[in-house]
Amino acid sequence: MIQSLMRTIVTFLSFLLLTGLLPAQQRPSMLVNAADIAAIKRSAGRYPLFERAVAEAKAKVDAAIAAPMDVPVPKDAGGYTHERHKQNYGEMQMAGILYQVTKDERYVRFIREMLLKYAALYPTLGTHPAAASEAPGRLFWQSLNESVWMVNTMQAYDCVYDRLTAQERRTIEEGVFRPMVRYFSVDQKHILNRIHNHGTWMSAAVGMAGFAMRDTSMVAMALYGTNRDKKGGFLNQLELLFSPDGYFTEGPYYIRYAIMPFMVFAQAIDHNRPDLKIFEYRDGILKKAFYTMLQLTYTTGQFLPINDALKEKTYRSPEVIQALNIAYKKFRNDPALLAVAKDQGSVTLTGGGIEVAAALASAKEPAPFPYKSFEVRDGADGSEGGVGILRYGPNSDQMLALMKYTGHGLSHGHYDKLSLLFYDQQREQLQDYGAARFINVEPKYGGRYLPETKSFAMQTIAHNTVTVDERSHYDGKIDISEQFHADRNFFSVSDPDLQMMSATCTTAYPGVAMRRTVLMVNDPSLAKPVLVDIFTVDGPKQHTFDLPFYYMGQFIHTNIKLQSYTAQQSMFGPANGYQHLWKEAEGKANGLVQFSWLSGQRYYSVSSAADSQTTVYSVRIGANDPNINLRREPAMILRKTGRSAVFASVIEPHGVWDGTIEISRNASSAIRDITVLASDSIGTAVRIDRKDGTRWTVLVSNGPASDTDRHTMNVNGTVQEWTGNAVIRKH
Amino acid sequence: MIQSLMRTIVTFLSFLLLTGLLPAQQRPSMLVNAADIAAIKRSAGRYPLFERAVAEAKAKVDAAIAAPMDVPVPKDAGGYTHERHKQNYGEMQMAGILYQVTKDERYVRFIREMLLKYAALYPTLGTHPAAASEAPGRLFWQSLNESVWMVNTMQAYDCVYDRLTAQERRTIEEGVFRPMVRYFSVDQKHILNRIHNHGTWMSAAVGMAGFAMRDTSMVAMALYGTNRDKKGGFLNQLELLFSPDGYFTEGPYYIRYAIMPFMVFAQAIDHNRPDLKIFEYRDGILKKAFYTMLQLTYTTGQFLPINDALKEKTYRSPEVIQALNIAYKKFRNDPALLAVAKDQGSVTLTGGGIEVAAALASAKEPAPFPYKSFEVRDGADGSEGGVGILRYGPNSDQMLALMKYTGHGLSHGHYDKLSLLFYDQQREQLQDYGAARFINVEPKYGGRYLPETKSFAMQTIAHNTVTVDERSHYDGKIDISEQFHADRNFFSVSDPDLQMMSATCTTAYPGVAMRRTVLMVNDPSLAKPVLVDIFTVDGPKQHTFDLPFYYMGQFIHTNIKLQSYTAQQSMFGPANGYQHLWKEAEGKANGLVQFSWLSGQRYYSVSSAADSQTTVYSVRIGANDPNINLRREPAMILRKTGRSAVFASVIEPHGVWDGTIEISRNASSAIRDITVLASDSIGTAVRIDRKDGTRWTVLVSNGPASDTDRHTMNVNGTVQEWTGNAVIRKH
Repeated sequence: MIQSLMRTIVTFLSFLLLTGLLPAQQRPSMLVNAADIAAIKRSAGRYPLFERAVAEAKAKVDAAIAAPMDVPVPKDAGGYTHERHKQNYGEMQMAGILYQVTKDERYVRFIREMLLKYAALYPTLGTHPAAASEAPGRLFWQSLNESVWMVNTMQAYDCVYDRLTAQERRTIEEGVFRPMVRYFSVDQKHILNRIHNHGTWMSAAVGMAGFAMRDTSMVAMALYGTNRDKKGGFLNQLELLFSPDGYFTEGPYYIRYAIMPFMVFAQAIDHNRPDLKIFEYRDGILKKAFYTMLQLTYTTGQFLPINDALKEKTYRSPEVIQALNIAYKKFRNDPALLAVAKDQGSVTLTGGGIEVAAALASAKEPAPFPYKSFEVRDGADGSEGGVGILRYGPNSDQMLALMKYTGHGLSHGHYDKLSLLFYDQQREQLQDYGAARFINVEPKYGGRYLPETKSFAMQTIAHNTVTVDERSHYDGKIDISEQFHADRNFFSVSDPDLQMMSATCTTAYPGVAMRRTVLMVNDPSLAKPVLVDIFTVDGPKQHTFDLPFYYMGQFIHTNIKLQSYTAQQSMFGPANGYQHLWKEAEGKANGLVQFSWLSGQRYYSVSSAADSQTTVYSVRIGANDPNINLRREPAMILRKTGRSAVFASVIEPHGVWDGTIEISRNASSAIRDITVLASDSIGTAVRIDRKDGTRWTVLVSNGPASDTDRHTMNVNGTVQEWTGNAVIRKH
Repeated sequence: MIQSLMRTIVTFLSFLLLTGLLPAQQRPSMLVNAADIAAIKRSAGRYPLFERAVAEAKAKVDAAIAAPMDVPVPKDAGGYTHERHKQNYGEMQMAGILYQVTKDERYVRFIREMLLKYAALYPTLGTHPAAASEAPGRLFWQSLNESVWMVNTMQAYDCVYDRLTAQERRTIEEGVFRPMVRYFSVDQKHILNRIHNHGTWMSAAVGMAGFAMRDTSMVAMALYGTNRDKKGGFLNQLELLFSPDGYFTEGPYYIRYAIMPFMVFAQAIDHNRPDLKIFEYRDGILKKAFYTMLQLTYTTGQFLPINDALKEKTYRSPEVIQALNIAYKKFRNDPALLAVAKDQGSVTLTGGGIEVAAALASAKEPAPFPYKSFEVRDGADGSEGGVGILRYGPNSDQMLALMKYTGHGLSHGHYDKLSLLFYDQQREQLQDYGAARFINVEPKYGGRYLPETKSFAMQTIAHNTVTVDERSHYDGKIDISEQFHADRNFFSVSDPDLQMMSATCTTAYPGVAMRRTVLMVNDPSLAKPVLVDIFTVDGPKQHTFDLPFYYMGQFIHTNIKLQSYTAQQSMFGPANGYQHLWKEAEGKANGLVQFSWLSGQRYYSVSSAADSQTTVYSVRIGANDPNINLRREPAMILRKTGRSAVFASVIEPHGVWDGTIEISRNASSAIRDITVLASDSIGTAVRIDRKDGTRWTVLVSNGPASDTDRHTMNVNGTVQEWTGNAVIRKH
């Protein structure tokens, strides 16, 4: 009897432990709790940014209340019905908060009526008529949007729950919430369990539904996967989607989007299951993810567009505002965030929103966001390469160089190992194309990724890295690419005047070893630092090696005599992205290759060592693009042929241009010549001769990384010795 | 004896009258006089903008005094020596004012030493080694820059004149000033007497030299030409270079530059020869010129780029700042100028500069500059066509349409009769290419106009107007084009919801009559006004008529099935600008032609009536451009063939796009169809069907302009009657 009772108690306790059925929190308990609501009430009239957020929410919801309510039958993937359902969940979410703050009955009526309409509509829906992915929704063309609907709607439901009758709750929960959760957790469980940002959104949706409906089994599914075995679900996503440094495997553009469900769901967990200490989980991985995300923007706020990325996305995106407001409160009001918050220009209706608004209401100008040179490792255990970023100068005119040597990055990854991005003067100078997509623009392929994303933007030739034999890395096959990654050779930013990063990739082409070393060199004789870029490729057989520079700006000059295709031009090659490039001109190099462009108020030059085996192509994106989906932007491509090649270049900002006052100075590069003196397994030696007569000898180690090892190398008969990974001898 | 004395006196008086030798003014008396200097001293510490101007001048001149002085032997057309001489005259000019204000001897010494160096250098110079124009200089590659040197240097000389010894004055005047005036008035008298902005700069130079050296014969040459017959010189330039409305014959871009010598010399005249009442001359032509210049900018400050023009030029250019500061004082502190002055962000070291700075120092935000819809006539007597400008909306989001129906506009004129420019959202939407030039950029053709200005930018096909049979207007021959002009048919902006302009050109092609009518229509059902654009062309013979739309933005969609040249593309035609266009795609129209683009946060569509004789070409600038001098920008070209053609189009902003919050609405045009119902000598009738079912019938008179005449026209068997120049019947 006692044994039986004991067994029952143990079973019950185990059940409690497993499902986390703790005493119900006071509502609301999603993004805001009772303390936040009290703080919002107290804040009235005090913090302009927050006041505006409240006023805007009121204006929007009051307008919605005044207008006819519409919960339309879904039709399109980016048209009216899509937008209307987005609008609806946004209005419900705001109405919920407004009800909690004002206790105005109108907001309850609005949410109640709309939820009842959804409860009536949802059971009538099959798969969305415009569905086109492996993860279709019912209200929306993809279940991703449907997850977002639920994340928002659950906040509204939670806010007015206590004001609905039991019958209303039943109608709503049985009509739409539970069937939707069922749809997610049964029909779409491959998404819910997926280690991917869509999985995170769905986990957040199901988990917040669980919190709102006090359904612990939903919460368990959200946290541990549909089988509650931690092979899927939020916690496993936190384990696998981030490297130990907080790098999100899909890259900066997608963490911009994914940060929202991560932080929002974490906030809801923190309010409902404080015992989980979710913000401390995995050594504070959410905090690392958040700060790494901000460090992966340029000073304009733009996310560095590696992998599929749209360049209009900045830290001013609503998802980042949401995340920052949560982070600011949770991470002890870090003042470093305030410059970003100010630039965002708005706050959310949350406790964090008040604290950000209060800080910005003080007269003090926030310090600039502390951007730094840094490396983040990729891979769940940090062993799969990474991203290196070198920076120099104040935020107002910061030079940035990025090298990508990560793993593939899931379905939005590009075949761009060792690709280089270069920024200066608040703009791209050597660009990554990003993705080909006009998001939500219905006439452009329904707003989805355009076919040119796969056929061009993902291909290696679309990037500032080497393509071998006109084939993309890993032959453009994701199932192969996903097995590999590049590797950091060394990364050091301890000397601000000689920052360096170096990475190797031996897997992109069977038998071909690629290594790139980028130095950011500041020198008293230079107005701005220069990049020294040494890219070595070694293959056992004869190859062609193509290295593009996708420069951004007005072409100014090249020292190469180019044969221009003036009356007729053809695509550069038949496939692998080459078919999207027009060959505008080509020429044979003879010693130095140099070309320059004008961008903003400065000139830029690339100077590169070449021999008679080097061909230079001036190309432009846009061939085989019948719908004009691609931007007509240029590149210069250096092509070398042989068993191996060294591309040794200096990338150099110089001079000044001001059209208003008609000033142009130093329009020409300061580099007279660049020579590869030697390159072997020990190192690469490059001589840079400047027009002012000074000479730099650059010695870069190609062996194992070490700050202390001494290297000895035969350079054209004389012995060069140096210590560490790279040195520059200035004569 | 008495007779002889009387004769002497009469002769002397006549001489006085002729040469204007009036009692010498107190120095300084160029841009500033003693009262201005006193005001500058009084202003100390009071007006931030003026304080900054003084501080910047001090910093620059003090740095110049501290550095080695260099008056180099001239070499280049845009390199060091060119820039150095520009720097020198700027520093001397500032040093002069600073001396007057501070009485600091260092400034006198600086000017003295530099002028003595110029006096030593100048006699050794022949024609400038990089001279390449019909008006070479000695210090500079063109005498234009040399005139500017003198305009500035004379201000400096005037300021320190009283502190130089007679010997120093003689050395300087004989060494450089008088030889330079001689060079201008003898070797280059074709420039000095020329009715052209270069002539104005030279007049100002010679006239200010005359005032500074008290040489009345120089002043007379400057005012009346080298023969003092008023066939050349400043007064004749005021007569002939401006229309009665103040339109400068070369267009907005060049008045931006020319306004400076006009206003600067006028200010000097006003100080030295107040009897001439120069600012009242020709019914206040300088005031009209100044205000018309500002009205010929868009709300961004950009000068509307008809004829040769560089788009980076705005009213923030230093010449306009100089002119505005003079104008503000002279034209009674017009508060309308303050918004422009604020946007300029700096003031000159003049009396006007103080008054502008004082006005801006008050806390009040200046009212936006009062841009208006207006027409300016071209031609010295106003009979040579003009420019029509329609505007709608606040300066922050103003729609602007410009039609050009002027005369040729001297050597920088384009073959672009009836060309249309369209702006919205603070940016170009249908562009004028402007000129091909990178000013002062040495590697780009020495910074001069590029050959592509003539071969492309000037040609008719480079403009949004009709090219007949692939030949430019007047066959691209300036000597023919200069004899003709287009004519206004009507221009009316009395109804802000139906603004209209119409012009005719019968001379561009022998026997071909072209007429364009542009209506800016605001309608309660539209978020923004639309343009209705009706272009009729009648030739006696079979022709091809090409009408391009150089849209600015990302192409979104066309309803035409275009055959794209995907793997290879060719130039559009062999000559007359066509050789610079790549033919990207073409298709046959069948009813409506519609295409759209995305720019900023809005979509734009052109919808145009077409028949099966209409071909549509998607083209891009850049063929036959081996040095990549041209911007790779697109156009859609409608080609009709026949004895006559009517291009009836609606140009329509619509929808909204915001990538940050992923909103896209109304990406498609609201126009369903456009039909030309009839077109004859009485009028043109066009039907516009909108997707919402409403229909507009547009009736435009092709006869003589009249607001009151009644027109009767047979339209497909029914009689249409209307009064006035144009009506829209909305059904």
